[in-house]
Amino acid sequence: MKSPFNSTFTIGFLGAGQLARMSALQAFRYGMQVAVFSDRPEDEPVQFMTPKSFSGSFDDPKAMAEFAKTCDVVTLENEFIDSTVLSKVQQISGTPIYPSPKSFALIENKLIEKQTFENAEIPVTPYKLIGNQSDLDLFGEAHGWPYLLKSSKGGYDGYGNETVRNPEEARKAFVKLGGDQGRDILAEAFVDFTHELAVQVAMNETGHVVYPCCETVQKNHICVAVRTPAPVLNSYRKKAEELAVKAVKAIDGKGIFAFEFFLTSDGEILLNESAPRPHNSGHYSIEGSVTSQFENHVRAVCGMPLGSTELVKPSAVMVNLLGTDKRTATVENSDKATVTANGHLHIYGKLQSKPGRKMAHFTLLGDDPEETYERALKVTRDIRI
Amino acid sequence: MKSPFNSTFTIGFLGAGQLARMSALQAFRYGMQVAVFSDRPEDEPVQFMTPKSFSGSFDDPKAMAEFAKTCDVVTLENEFIDSTVLSKVQQISGTPIYPSPKSFALIENKLIEKQTFENAEIPVTPYKLIGNQSDLDLFGEAHGWPYLLKSSKGGYDGYGNETVRNPEEARKAFVKLGGDQGRDILAEAFVDFTHELAVQVAMNETGHVVYPCCETVQKNHICVAVRTPAPVLNSYRKKAEELAVKAVKAIDGKGIFAFEFFLTSDGEILLNESAPRPHNSGHYSIEGSVTSQFENHVRAVCGMPLGSTELVKPSAVMVNLLGTDKRTATVENSDKATVTANGHLHIYGKLQSKPGRKMAHFTLLGDDPEETYERALKVTRDIRI
Repeated sequence: MKSPFNSTFTIGFLGAGQLARMSALQAFRYGMQVAVFSDRPEDEPVQFMTPKSFSGSFDDPKAMAEFAKTCDVVTLENEFIDSTVLSKVQQISGTPIYPSPKSFALIENKLIEKQTFENAEIPVTPYKLIGNQSDLDLFGEAHGWPYLLKSSKGGYDGYGNETVRNPEEARKAFVKLGGDQGRDILAEAFVDFTHELAVQVAMNETGHVVYPCCETVQKNHICVAVRTPAPVLNSYRKKAEELAVKAVKAIDGKGIFAFEFFLTSDGEILLNESAPRPHNSGHYSIEGSVTSQFENHVRAVCGMPLGSTELVKPSAVMVNLLGTDKRTATVENSDKATVTANGHLHIYGKLQSKPGRKMAHFTLLGDDPEETYERALKVTRDIRI
Repeated sequence: MKSPFNSTFTIGFLGAGQLARMSALQAFRYGMQVAVFSDRPEDEPVQFMTPKSFSGSFDDPKAMAEFAKTCDVVTLENEFIDSTVLSKVQQISGTPIYPSPKSFALIENKLIEKQTFENAEIPVTPYKLIGNQSDLDLFGEAHGWPYLLKSSKGGYDGYGNETVRNPEEARKAFVKLGGDQGRDILAEAFVDFTHELAVQVAMNETGHVVYPCCETVQKNHICVAVRTPAPVLNSYRKKAEELAVKAVKAIDGKGIFAFEFFLTSDGEILLNESAPRPHNSGHYSIEGSVTSQFENHVRAVCGMPLGSTELVKPSAVMVNLLGTDKRTATVENSDKATVTANGHLHIYGKLQSKPGRKMAHFTLLGDDPEETYERALKVTRDIRI
């Protein structure tokens, strides 16, 4: 591969949303050129950031290979492309894709993902592949109601997940998720947890670095805020960080990966989900860490040495700013946030807002974790997008 | 003007070099769109960062107005466009330009610049407009040899400046700089200084913010490193910061401005040069300050409230990485720099390197100013570009 420090080096992103956008900003910082492949009909954030913009379907390896041929390395910002399709893109174009299709194949399907991590002795939430409808009842009897049904592919932010409280709801959800059309459906036990934790790990041939374990504060299955470090015992944070490193090694990952854990009320740490890309839980690292997850993402996939993940202040809080209105995106009432010392507003450049859509985020650094968290919520409370 | 937080808001840069590039990265962070107008035949750094790329002459108001019409606000990254041309661009396009052509008119010509600041009671280096060749001798007699001859427009990084040691050299330089062709030539006394200082100030209708006074370490009239805060008495730093604010007010500046001072061996602070744009002396602020000069540049010209200029660590050192070879730009031997904790490498994306060209910079944050400075020089020593 060409040196990533050569001025003609081009990094390509499959996907053009905010994760690719924030990664591209880091690539630009290293003097790289950026290309993007979008599967959306409308203009996407990264398409405003480069003349090298491609569009097409994530099911079309040839179209993606045309894009990949213009790049020195290609990376992902989502889990929507099948690993076999990625392999074809890599083969046709001759351009390496990181994380590799091989790594991705070990986590793209929720069933295989659980098996991969169980084999690596990483505790996961109790689950079962639902073979037939009577399995739905058996799982409820074994693990209690309610529990979760998940489609084995394609879910994010709670989409593709259904909470079921009784056998009847379980049957309906099974059908809704496509279980009667041959789609693999997983039952997952509700875990009695006190905190949801997350850890990002970057790895490549030069080594690996781990970000401090953070807490993701969730509302309706959507992350509304992230607190770093997580307000839990140091021993729990260390345990989660160890498991995250184990998990990246289990899939021989090259790139940045995020792992979400449950800290149960018994003090167990269970792996919930993984993502082969920068993650919402790591946005705080742009200002909160010496090297952000986006910078280490770019470094990792380009084979560069990885940077320090140390926090620059004792506490970093990130608040997701979700769309409040269906309209042309405009951020209003953000003055309090922009003038707050050590506060950093990031807007993703999406043209359209709608309620719940991830449009922007705000990071606040501080000394006292509780005070920083409360202040971050307060100065962002009135923002409308 | 449209809200800068509207997702269709477009900021335009006249000039496509590293200053516009680093400013554009901040504009993207706010979800803005970026357009650029370049006067160079070859691809320039910002042209790789947007599909909205225009080219033409800086003498052609119509071409620049076509570009400006696609923008909600236009800003500058250099001093190469005449203020009367900028006025025309603003008038034809209806798009505001900040810093305003009116502010720029007060500093674009070195003679008018000196008069503007003298009128505001800001001490400047002793100077004289050379009316005829005998003035050259008189200036030398009055202020001593050697002294500087400067073309009143267009110089930067020592280009357009000549050091003259005697009447004969003065005559030659006068002709070389175009003095015999009606160009205004200024004589400027050599100042016996101990340090060269610089201060950046951002200002708009919401107020102003001042960056801490830094030292620019120069070699052959090119800035090779910047130390923040400047290693001089606190009272000198405060004085320089006060003068810089006075200077921005004197030109009713909207945007970010940089001021370079001499600290004389008598403890006087004399204004040397000003720039209506982000400045090399402020690159350290990307990581060194809560809000970088580029972010405050974008905020200022868009009418947003300005951000804190506080340092995040006691010391910030920036080392300019100049081209070492004439070749396709490739940064070599940068591993030491990239793995140094609190070290940040920035590469500008210029395709061609040549000896002395500003290609990249490295910022190191630390606790001890002297140790940080020495370490920054050490880890960048072997870098070739």
